This record gives sequence, structure tokens and C-alpha cells, in this order.
Amino acid sequence: MELEGLSLVGAKRGLRVGKPFAANNPANNERLPGDFHPATAQDVEFAVRLAAEAFSVFSQWNGVKRASLMNRIAELLEANARAIVERGNLETALTPARLQGELARTCFQLRFYGEAAVTGLCSGARIDHADPNRKPLPKPDVRSLLRPVGPVVVFGASNFPLAYSVAGGDTASALAAGCPVIVKAHPAHPGLSEMVGILVRQAAREAGAPEGIFSLLFDDSYETGVELVKHPLVKSIGFTGSRRGGRALMDLAATRPEPIPVFAEMSSINPVFILPEILKQKPVELAAGLHSSVTMGVGQFCTNPGLVFVQSGDTANHFLQELGKLMAATAPGIMLTEGICAAYGTGVNKMSETPGVRQIARADVAGAQAGASLFATEAKTFFCSHGLMDEVFGPSTLVVECSSREEMFAAVQQLEGQLTATIHATPGELATYHGLVTLLETKAGRLVLNAFPTGVEVCHAMTHGGPYPATADGRSTSVGTRAIERFLRPVSYQNFPDAALPDELKEANPLGIWRLVDGRLKRD
Amino acid sequence: MELEGLSLVGAKRGLRVGKPFAANNPANNERLPGDFHPATAQDVEFAVRLAAEAFSVFSQWNGVKRASLMNRIAELLEANARAIVERGNLETALTPARLQGELARTCFQLRFYGEAAVTGLCSGARIDHADPNRKPLPKPDVRSLLRPVGPVVVFGASNFPLAYSVAGGDTASALAAGCPVIVKAHPAHPGLSEMVGILVRQAAREAGAPEGIFSLLFDDSYETGVELVKHPLVKSIGFTGSRRGGRALMDLAATRPEPIPVFAEMSSINPVFILPEILKQKPVELAAGLHSSVTMGVGQFCTNPGLVFVQSGDTANHFLQELGKLMAATAPGIMLTEGICAAYGTGVNKMSETPGVRQIARADVAGAQAGASLFATEAKTFFCSHGLMDEVFGPSTLVVECSSREEMFAAVQQLEGQLTATIHATPGELATYHGLVTLLETKAGRLVLNAFPTGVEVCHAMTHGGPYPATADGRSTSVGTRAIERFLRPVSYQNFPDAALPDELKEANPLGIWRLVDGRLKRD
Repeated sequence: MELEGLSLVGAKRGLRVGKPFAANNPANNERLPGDFHPATAQDVEFAVRLAAEAFSVFSQWNGVKRASLMNRIAELLEANARAIVERGNLETALTPARLQGELARTCFQLRFYGEAAVTGLCSGARIDHADPNRKPLPKPDVRSLLRPVGPVVVFGASNFPLAYSVAGGDTASALAAGCPVIVKAHPAHPGLSEMVGILVRQAAREAGAPEGIFSLLFDDSYETGVELVKHPLVKSIGFTGSRRGGRALMDLAATRPEPIPVFAEMSSINPVFILPEILKQKPVELAAGLHSSVTMGVGQFCTNPGLVFVQSGDTANHFLQELGKLMAATAPGIMLTEGICAAYGTGVNKMSETPGVRQIARADVAGAQAGASLFATEAKTFFCSHGLMDEVFGPSTLVVECSSREEMFAAVQQLEGQLTATIHATPGELATYHGLVTLLETKAGRLVLNAFPTGVEVCHAMTHGGPYPATADGRSTSVGTRAIERFLRPVSYQNFPDAALPDELKEANPLGIWRLVDGRLKRD
Repeated sequence: MELEGLSLVGAKRGLRVGKPFAANNPANNERLPGDFHPATAQDVEFAVRLAAEAFSVFSQWNGVKRASLMNRIAELLEANARAIVERGNLETALTPARLQGELARTCFQLRFYGEAAVTGLCSGARIDHADPNRKPLPKPDVRSLLRPVGPVVVFGASNFPLAYSVAGGDTASALAAGCPVIVKAHPAHPGLSEMVGILVRQAAREAGAPEGIFSLLFDDSYETGVELVKHPLVKSIGFTGSRRGGRALMDLAATRPEPIPVFAEMSSINPVFILPEILKQKPVELAAGLHSSVTMGVGQFCTNPGLVFVQSGDTANHFLQELGKLMAATAPGIMLTEGICAAYGTGVNKMSETPGVRQIARADVAGAQAGASLFATEAKTFFCSHGLMDEVFGPSTLVVECSSREEMFAAVQQLEGQLTATIHATPGELATYHGLVTLLETKAGRLVLNAFPTGVEVCHAMTHGGPYPATADGRSTSVGTRAIERFLRPVSYQNFPDAALPDELKEANPLGIWRLVDGRLKRD
């Protein structure tokens, strides 16, 4: 695939004006081939207007048509896997194996969400039949359906250049919902973004979709993002990134004349609670499991466990010693960008300078290359150093030693919202510590037992979202079929004859979807 | 029931300090018995802290327990109907028949939402079974459930002193979800609010609920509301009222350190489209139907049709003449408060002074007494006078005469978000004007065919919410069982043994609720 370095504005290309930027190979800090031109104000305006036009057509597509478009995107990604993985590896330093896996996940996601559109899982169809004889007033026929909200802007994530970028989870959710998408490409992997964008556009063209259902805009500054969020025809935002970036978008969206929802997945330190009995039973195994979860992919996962609570004592010391050995022996890895690596260095330094925090394994940071870090402290220190709850994005974790069960519970109370919370416990301990589960339910979107939080399964029951600041709105998830609902709104039809109803609500259920009929869920 | 005029702070009463206010009888402008003391900062703090404490217990109640509490509230309301209706009539000038009907609706709502908690309709339970043999990685067991968000603040509405006030739709939604509620009583019906509050508290006590699940705070200024919305332990807001008030709460909530969602149902002019053929067939009947919908309850409904589109010509003239006669012959009615009536007068004056707008029936406004108004204009004038889209809360409507189908469509494009949109059409016209339906879907939460929008059915399929400014978030409804979902967030449980799972997610489905199991909805 040939890269032009120009935004994809519907079926056209953006203007070749402005100062271009290039991608960087984080492995050797060399500039990669290709000039990428930031989108102009005109590109933004055209992309949004095309999306709004496309909405009137695409929003009427049924689930089968949407799914076939999404399946075709997946096919094209698979057919071009080699080129995608090659460029992705150069731009992100993620291994070809990891990128191959991520590509598979991206394709699965597209097909899985498409299938949810076909079965009507996300149509939320409801039918309440009329009752003309009801007293004191007759009951009208009321039917409702979840309908797409309108054009959605997706900000590509740096750490999932495929699964949470151009054709990633947010885009798949929006397309499954029937919303046109405008992607703001992440400037760290513009070439990969353009490749995927070209394929999405090809699939859209083949499917006969209006050109505006997909645009891809480049920019290495904030300008294009700000213009997109402020545009009156944009109706929703999907974002994966930093807390500061996400909050800035939330604030911007909230002050629009017409405020719109921002679904920002921002930051999480994913606390792990290792209860005393299980720690006694397998300190070495737990240290190995935690080490692997913390250092996997150079720690660049939103679900990376950055905080571990144990009960202080000999067992904890043994565990810390084992974990420290593993961390110290971890080979440094190349992070996604020099900027991310510099921020990791700063975070690690800040932690090591916090009074009362012991540094057990030292991270070496040079260029984009980062080593693993391990810190330990007492609960008392944790309670009075709020900064210890700031996310350190990278292969680092902090072990907090609690002197009692009460101290562990008090620490939970102090936690901000999280994507995940993990408990390691024997069956007996789980019963004794049941209060920990109910408390963590209020703090995190996903509770994991006797496993580690990294690795987010794409399934119906997944919640990848949690109370602020994990996500902008803890009532949403950005992974799993529930993610589609973020871009839908209910519309009711009262007193409509069958012929005038959307197919999803026609009496005979011609689409064969799940529906709530007079309070009972049915598909036949 | 004896009124004390003090806030209900859990099981206690608020402080008797500060300058009290009284209720007013809008029918004669006389002060009603009872001094009501505004909540103090301490009352607010206690109420919220009690609610947060209560949450840890109440959030663990299953649907059956929540429903039985809600059923008991309904029983107590019914048992005290006479006193409630009597005081309500004095405070609001709504007729006893209307208040009796509203009380019945309130009780139905409590029972209906409680039933949804029992059947698990709003539990959103999902189970994805593990697959240890999946390649390349084993699939974990993931289950998810919608869990309550935390303490909810409800602002009572003036125009539904029962169904959208202390024990109204927002409170019923929050209780069904498992959230404690703090109600900010509307200052126009404090006595009615106290009566209902006493009964809710009694039901909570009888059900063995923690005292903090319900508090009721009085205030005739904004202070208490602002403190509540800013309080870090408050997690969600329900509001029914003006656009200005709702937006102020949205802005306040968005600028908190932890932003929270505001579900504000604010303003709507509920456009009605009467297509040419049906208007020709029954101009008199349509005039009568519209007149009744506009003037019912002195026009004090959020679904009051304030804007009517017809095709200009002889038929339209005939229709306007008929409607004008009916409006002119309408006896003036007493509005909820003098303030509301004054605002109505201002709105009507503003409209009559808009160049190009003809006044067909004149509203007399005196004290709290308001007559009906009818205005007419051409589409051209409508297009260039944005103020004609401002809600005039009361028995007034504006008929816009379009010279063509295109003009009617252009008018729709210009509309802001609405709660409802209504079409009157013959079957043939409906087919010809199908584009009108798809366009209106993007503008309103409920489409009504050949009927009028007033009267909101409480059912599963109801949407009472629409794009901003109809509601803060067009993805929500404040009526129907979907309203409960506003106060829920998904939580996933990964790799949990059966015994440690919430009952809703245990393999054997002990609660017999609806669940999505490996992509199939089941209850058995």
C-alpha cells in the first residue's frame, strides 16, 4: 500500500498544506519514510459535513448490512496483515507477534460487534401492545428501538495501534450502532493509521456506503481534535489516552452550546489485593504472575497492575524479595514513544523520591528504552501521599504493606475509580473478606479473582470502564458488545401502523432479533 | 398527618433555623399554613453522609426486597390519598381528579419499576462461560451485572407534584436501581412533599432499610441544590424543570473534580406535523384534538404541543379558524404558581410582538390565572426568528404555515432536540412523507402518529427524553423501566467461583431473572 500522508476526507484526500510531520522509529530514534500533513480547518469541516450527510443513509442500514461492511473491513485487514504488521512494528516497536495478535483481536471485534447488530442485541427493541379496554384510559401501542446518535469522533490510542485505533473498538462500536466515524489518527503511528484507513474506505466503497461514513484526519497538535469536539454536527466522542487529555475533551464537550457525551478511557492503576493465606501458600508463583502482568508489553496496558496490597510480615518480605529479583532481571524494553518513556522516567523518579517509599528494583530509562521498577511502602505512607495513586504508565508497580485487614479496607476507601481490581485469595479467605468484594465493586468496573488484570476479553459480559477517572462515565465500557450502546439512544414509536414501523419493531419480527414484548424477552 | 416544616434527614429532622418560607395557594394567593425551614449546610452534609452509609447496605438488597419497599410506599400513598390530594390541591391548584390520577400513576410507577427489579430486566446480567481449550489463549469466565451508582439527588418538579416529585419517577428509578435518594423538595408544594416524605420514610423503616436511603430537604433558594450537586459523595442527579435550571446543574456537575451525570428533563415544544390530506379530511376533529392537548391542565405538561406545522391554503385557514374559536372560548385556568403564570405572560407577549406573527386568540393573564393563546405565522418568519422555538410553558401554540413540503422539511432541520414529535397523516401520506419520520427520529425521543403527545404511558417501551435541550443526555429516558438504567453501571466478575458471585450471576439462576448467557437471552 502506498502512503500519501494526507488525511482521508470521505472519498477524497485532505489538502497538502501546512507543516508535515513524520513517524519515528522508537527502536532507533530514526525518522520513518512518509510526510504526514495535518488536517486543515477545511478538511475538518468537510469530513464532519460528509459524516452528517452519510448519517441520514447509514443510520437506516439494518444490522445485516452493517455487519457485512464490518466483516469486509476485517477481511481486508487480514489480507494486508503483513504490510500492516511491518509498518506497525517500525512505528511502535511492538513485536510482530504482538501486532499480529492485536490484528486478530481487531478483526474478531469487528465481526463480533457486527454479529450483535445482526442479532439485535444492541437494538434494545421493545414492544408494549395497546389495550383499548384499559381503564381509566386506553393503553396506546408503544414500541422503542435504540437508534444511532449521529457522527462519532474517535481518537486513536497510542498503546493499541490496531485494536483501539483507526478500525479499533470505538470505531467498531460506532459502525455497529449505525454512526459514521471520523478518526483523529494518533500521531505516533500515522503510517499504520493511513494503511488501515485506506482499507476501511475500500470496504465502505465496496459496501455501497455513503463516503462520509469514514474519514481519517492527521494532526500532530491538538487543533484538529479541538475543532472536531466543538463541531455542532458531531454527537459523541470516543477516546483512549491520558487523564489530562481525556478531561480536557470532557470539559470542552461539556461547554458546547449542545453538550455531548465523551467516552474517555483515561487512567487506572488496577489495584491487586493478595490476601495473607494465599500469599503464604504460593509467594513465588504470585510473584511470577504479578511480574509477568506488570512487565508484559513494557507495561503499556491500561490494565497494568500498578498497586499491590499485601499484609506485612515475613511472607510479604519473601514475596517482595522474589518479585524484586524478577523485576531486576527484566530486560529493558522499548516503549511506544520517547515521550511516553520520558513520562515513565518522571513517574518512577517521583515515586522513588516520595518519603517512606523504598525502591527495590531500579528502572533504567534511556531514549525510548525502559527497565522495570518495583517500589514498596507502608499503608501509613500510602494514606498521606495522594501522589502514589497517580498512574505511572510503564513496567512499574508499588507494593503497599498493610499491618491489618482494617488498614487494607481503609486503603480501598481511598482509591479513585479503576478499570479493574484484583483479589488473590483462598476460598476461605474470600468468604472472610467478602466486604472487600462489595467495596471494590464501587471502585472498579471489573473484578478479577486469582488471575491478573492484563488481557481484556472481548465478550458480551466484559466491562472495560470504571468510575471516574478510570473513564469519563463509569456507566460505560469501551470493550465488549455493551460498548456499542454508548452510541445509541432510544426512540419510541407510538400508534404506528406496522408498515410504517422500522423492521426491528414490525409485529412479525422479520429480522428475527431479540425483543422485549410486553415485558418478556423473545426472538421468535 | 402533621407537618413540621423541617427537612427529613434520614430518621431525624433538619434544624429549625434560618428564615422559613410558606406555601402559597395559587387560586387565591393566600399563604397556606405551615412554616418550612430551608435545609442548613449541616442538614445537607448529614443527609449525604447517611446516604453514602446506607448505600453499602441498600446496594446489596436484591430486587425482591427493593420491590417490597416500593410496594409499601405505594400502599401508604394510597392509604393517605385523601390528605395528600387535599393539600396538593391547595398548593398547586391542580384539580382533585387530576391529583388522584397522578397519585395512581405514581403508585403504578413504584410497583412497575419494583417489578422490573424483581424480574431482573434492569440487572442486565450477562454470563460468558470459560473455554479453557480456546487458542491461542484460554477464554476466562466473565459475568457482568448492572450495579447501583451511589447516592442520587432528585429535584422535585413543580408540574407533577406527585409523579415527578418526592416519590415520583426519578426516586422510583433510583430505588429500583438500589440507590439511596436525597430529594430537594420543590418549594411550590412543600406540604405535599413533607407528607409524601413522611410516608417514604415510614416504608423504609418498616422494610428495615438503613435510614439514609431517603432524605428530603427543603429550600426556597438555590443553595441546597448547589451544595448537593457539588458534594463528592453524590453520584448522580435527576431533575425535571426549566432549561436554564437544568443547564446550570449540568455545568456545575461537569466542573466537579469528579464529574457526574445529570439527567435533566428540561424543555420541549413538541412539534406536530399535520399533513395536507388528513387536514382536508378532518379539520374540525384535528382542531378539537389539538385544542384539548394544548389546554389540558392549563398547558403545564412537558409534552404540550407548542408548534404545529400545516400546509398553507384554504384548508389550513379553516383549521385555524376552528382552532381559534376553541382557544378563544377556553376558560382561563389557574397555573401552578404566579411566577409560572408571569413567565407564560412574558412568553406570549414576546410571541405576539414578533414581526410576522399573527395573534389569533388572546391570552388574558392575571395573578396565577391564564387564558389560552393561539398564534400563526409563515415558515419564512419561523426560519428567521429563532426565538419562536423557545418553550412557552402554558396553554399556547404557534401554527406555522408552510408553502411546500420542502419548507416543512427545512423547518424540521432547524428544530432543536424534542421530547416528542407528532405526525398526522393518512396511510398514503405517511408513505410519501417517510423522510419526515426518519428526520424526526433524529430530533425527538418519541414519535406519535395520529394522536397527541400529551399523556406519557409508563411502560417498558416509553422514551421520555430527547436530544439536548429536551434532556441533558438524549440517551436517557425519565419515564418507563429504561429510566432505572440511568442509575446503574456495569460491573464484571472474572474467574469467580459460584459461591462468591452475586445471586444474579450464580450458575443456577436462583433469582430466576433474565440473563444473556453466551449470547442468548434466558430466564430459566
